[in-house]
Amino acid sequence: MKLTFIGLGRMGLGIAGNLLKTDNTLTVFNRTREKGEPLAKEGAKLADSIHDAVSDCDVVFTMLADDNAVAHVVFGEAGIAASLPAGAIHVSHSTISVQMARKLAKEQAARGQAFVSAPVFGRPDAAEAKRLLVVAAGDQAALERVRPLLDAIGRQTYIAGAEPWHANLIKLNGNFMIACVLETFGEAFANIRKAGMDHHLFHEIMSELFGSPIYKGYGAAVAGNKFEPAGFALRLGLKDIRLGLEAAGELEVPMPFASILRDHFLAALANGQENMDWSSVGKIAALQAGLKD
Amino acid sequence: MKLTFIGLGRMGLGIAGNLLKTDNTLTVFNRTREKGEPLAKEGAKLADSIHDAVSDCDVVFTMLADDNAVAHVVFGEAGIAASLPAGAIHVSHSTISVQMARKLAKEQAARGQAFVSAPVFGRPDAAEAKRLLVVAAGDQAALERVRPLLDAIGRQTYIAGAEPWHANLIKLNGNFMIACVLETFGEAFANIRKAGMDHHLFHEIMSELFGSPIYKGYGAAVAGNKFEPAGFALRLGLKDIRLGLEAAGELEVPMPFASILRDHFLAALANGQENMDWSSVGKIAALQAGLKD
Amino acid sequence: MKLTFIGLGRMGLGIAGNLLKTDNTLTVFNRTREKGEPLAKEGAKLADSIHDAVSDCDVVFTMLADDNAVAHVVFGEAGIAASLPAGAIHVSHSTISVQMARKLAKEQAARGQAFVSAPVFGRPDAAEAKRLLVVAAGDQAALERVRPLLDAIGRQTYIAGAEPWHANLIKLNGNFMIACVLETFGEAFANIRKAGMDHHLFHEIMSELFGSPIYKGYGAAVAGNKFEPAGFALRLGLKDIRLGLEAAGELEVPMPFASILRDHFLAALANGQENMDWSSVGKIAALQAGLKD
Amino acid sequence: MKLTFIGLGRMGLGIAGNLLKTDNTLTVFNRTREKGEPLAKEGAKLADSIHDAVSDCDVVFTMLADDNAVAHVVFGEAGIAASLPAGAIHVSHSTISVQMARKLAKEQAARGQAFVSAPVFGRPDAAEAKRLLVVAAGDQAALERVRPLLDAIGRQTYIAGAEPWHANLIKLNGNFMIACVLETFGEAFANIRKAGMDHHLFHEIMSELFGSPIYKGYGAAVAGNKFEPAGFALRLGLKDIRLGLEAAGELEVPMPFASILRDHFLAALANGQENMDWSSVGKIAALQAGLKD
Repeated sequence: MKLTFIGLGRMGLGIAGNLLKTDNTLTVFNRTREKGEPLAKEGAKLADSIHDAVSDCDVVFTMLADDNAVAHVVFGEAGIAASLPAGAIHVSHSTISVQMARKLAKEQAARGQAFVSAPVFGRPDAAEAKRLLVVAAGDQAALERVRPLLDAIGRQTYIAGAEPWHANLIKLNGNFMIACVLETFGEAFANIRKAGMDHHLFHEIMSELFGSPIYKGYGAAVAGNKFEPAGFALRLGLKDIRLGLEAAGELEVPMPFASILRDHFLAALANGQENMDWSSVGKIAALQAGLKD
Repeated sequence: MKLTFIGLGRMGLGIAGNLLKTDNTLTVFNRTREKGEPLAKEGAKLADSIHDAVSDCDVVFTMLADDNAVAHVVFGEAGIAASLPAGAIHVSHSTISVQMARKLAKEQAARGQAFVSAPVFGRPDAAEAKRLLVVAAGDQAALERVRPLLDAIGRQTYIAGAEPWHANLIKLNGNFMIACVLETFGEAFANIRKAGMDHHLFHEIMSELFGSPIYKGYGAAVAGNKFEPAGFALRLGLKDIRLGLEAAGELEVPMPFASILRDHFLAALANGQENMDWSSVGKIAALQAGLKD
Repeated sequence: MKLTFIGLGRMGLGIAGNLLKTDNTLTVFNRTREKGEPLAKEGAKLADSIHDAVSDCDVVFTMLADDNAVAHVVFGEAGIAASLPAGAIHVSHSTISVQMARKLAKEQAARGQAFVSAPVFGRPDAAEAKRLLVVAAGDQAALERVRPLLDAIGRQTYIAGAEPWHANLIKLNGNFMIACVLETFGEAFANIRKAGMDHHLFHEIMSELFGSPIYKGYGAAVAGNKFEPAGFALRLGLKDIRLGLEAAGELEVPMPFASILRDHFLAALANGQENMDWSSVGKIAALQAGLKD
Repeated sequence: MKLTFIGLGRMGLGIAGNLLKTDNTLTVFNRTREKGEPLAKEGAKLADSIHDAVSDCDVVFTMLADDNAVAHVVFGEAGIAASLPAGAIHVSHSTISVQMARKLAKEQAARGQAFVSAPVFGRPDAAEAKRLLVVAAGDQAALERVRPLLDAIGRQTYIAGAEPWHANLIKLNGNFMIACVLETFGEAFANIRKAGMDHHLFHEIMSELFGSPIYKGYGAAVAGNKFEPAGFALRLGLKDIRLGLEAAGELEVPMPFASILRDHFLAALANGQENMDWSSVGKIAALQAGLKD
């Protein structure tokens, strides 16, 4: 098949690199063209525009920052919606709102294009190492066609249903669950530290107790109080919690933990943590306990 | 050494069983004598009273339900404080308040007895299988003497410091972190279910994402909505969160997640879940979202 | 001056009635024409379309349900933006988002129209009795022209500044403060009732202590557990809290009380209270405490 | 009747002063004797000990800081319990826990003494001006005997029931409701200020909207950011919220607003506000929003 990949940030580069290893041709496009050069050296074709990238492809993958970026790439002039052939498939890896996922499904269907939402769990190194968890949802026929490609970019593919937004709801709730770990460490560390004890020991015990790389890694980030450079920016973390709350609002589900996370992300922005990693939301509990760093 | 074990609930039985495998003699005592019979068959001596059990021992271990039970066994008539020889050591495995730990340390020191607080992480099956995590704190000399015994009952022993209550603060915060997992699953499941999706699939994805037996096991408990018989009673879960909040109050640490957990444990009691496992606190988010089961 | 009033719900009727008593001509328009007939009997002219109503007026007042209704009336075909003469003023009484207020200001300015945001505090009976509190913001010259008209519809006019959205921020925060009273009564009543005591007595004491008609009136509503028919619908209450949280998010202000209110409004919807008054959010604390009514 | 008053802080002085105006004799006692001298000048007798003060009286009133102070005065050596004649009445005005109220009722009944709990709402100036609200509960016969005395110290007496602790539950929930006003102003002011607007204007509008001296007075305190000297100390405010939460815990009532207040009182202590008035809890929302003063 003729594949196209749009959005070569660190996540996109890793995913596209794995698609390049399949028996398909790959065209890539990024707003700043040089981001695609490493892939070009390995055989990808560099396109000059979205239109060029998708007007003759079978499947286009996108990995973009947020709803606005997706709207621009899909619905902008000479964008995917206007340029992708009928019968082709758009696979969206971005963490977007359920509303945007519904809009993409509806608008692309109206053009005879298929839409598959396939957000992923994992950091850039996991993307590169083909260790992502892929959660996909959409029309069954389209899912069957892209299934081998999704299997090629992660360690496990989950099919969440026929409605593309279902995959996004899972992604948003998964990120909520990770963010909760940041807050729980933040609150516990504040206690341990104010008791004059070693919070690194507490982290070591919790790492053993939970036996989870997420507790080990994110716990170490919060314990070490080192949040720059940002791997996943604080503002994007806030965005995901906000989108999760919006989805929950529509479903009429109270989410008290998510509400606290939202407040703590806002407190983090208000306290100058804008350029830090989202794990720095774990600092807020310490600040509120009067700890100065 | 001559060892004594008091408190043969399911946790105590498992721990005492492992102490029996060491090169020491073991006397056991339980309010209801028959609980000790399985250990007697393997060589333990059954004592008729706390006084008999501890008046000639080197180390007495206790594993009891709460502060009141510990106060009764230690400070009651002919209890440990009155009967344990000077120079002997009391190792407390119970999940008690930091205030009670301080009181035990002070009162036993006044009698020439050493006090080591050594709460454990793990369910009864882990106790039996010598898979507990043991967190110990207290006088260094006493810790050195009991260290081999602690190593005999768990897979890892952590030394938390010279103040016995430090170990309890770690235990309370650890239980807080586990309880947070129950709530996070509760909130996320409520979303997934109200969207008409399969929350067991969400649990499967989270189990893989977190790679943690706690997420796998507790998530399955909440997903399955089956909370009886109770392994760890709801009221004991509330007790631990309450004790954690009391300790945090003394340390002047706000704990918004813990406050929500407290409210949800109270809501669970108020909604008839008293005889359920503490993991049933994960039901409350569903109830608040209008889901009837 | 030639005045026009659009949106003859219960609030709008009361306000328009007071404008009719000034020395100005009044044209009214409502989607369902018969709503305007009581005013027609007192001398108002009934218009057949928005265009007819505003194409020759000096000041148009609108009192509509939410952002969508305002967008439709202002930006819809032959709406206010397209039909109001340059130099005329649009006074918006609706409780809308700060974003919508900014959009109205910008878009109307581009057409040479002035925009004054003037949300009001008070129930329909207060509107009729000219007892509203009016909070107005916008261009100073426009404010000066409409000031006598605003004074004619309320007991006090406050000037909040030159940016129209400032008035809306005050309105949203004011409604937040009222909603908090509902929740505080809800939590306190749940305690009093579960203690087997008379919560009406508690309400009586609080009415005397606070000396406030809001505590007296809203407290009586929650105490009486009678929320139908709805004076101000639950979903509109949720909307206002949601808009307040959105504004706070943009300003980077955590609002833990508002977050709880949002969760409790959602719980109220999820528990079948959709057709009740917004004061029924005060029921949720009782429900969570296991009280069945 | 022969009356005795113990606890001559600012509240106690005001109340005792009004009792002195009744047709009864008044003996007063305070740990620091000179506090009683203004009353002595007006005819009160100064006692040298609790025993002297109560061993020949009909009714003893106490107004003390907290549970510990009450326990000391009542159950300490030669305290009220030991010295008050059988048949006499103890009227407790202190804001104490419901547990302590139950203990007082039980222990004094065992000695043939009657116990009436009669906490009051109002600041010291209201005590002096006989403007308190008095909430009384206890044995009906005792209530009837002291009713004229309670009417003599306040503007309104409410009878809360036969169980003394019922009055304390009302007092604790009333203080919770006042503290909520502090937080609501704190959150709203943070929004108004970060929008670059005048939060004093917002306070003025809210004062008019609520029409309550509590909104006017406490709102001005938070708006003015001036919290010293403390009229009612922050730590006492925390104590009342904590006692309210304990009572709610026993009654199995979740109180999310109270939980947030508890966290914010702790944050206030942790941020150096120990010597400020309890209204300074309203600063915390501003701090969390990144406002430095």
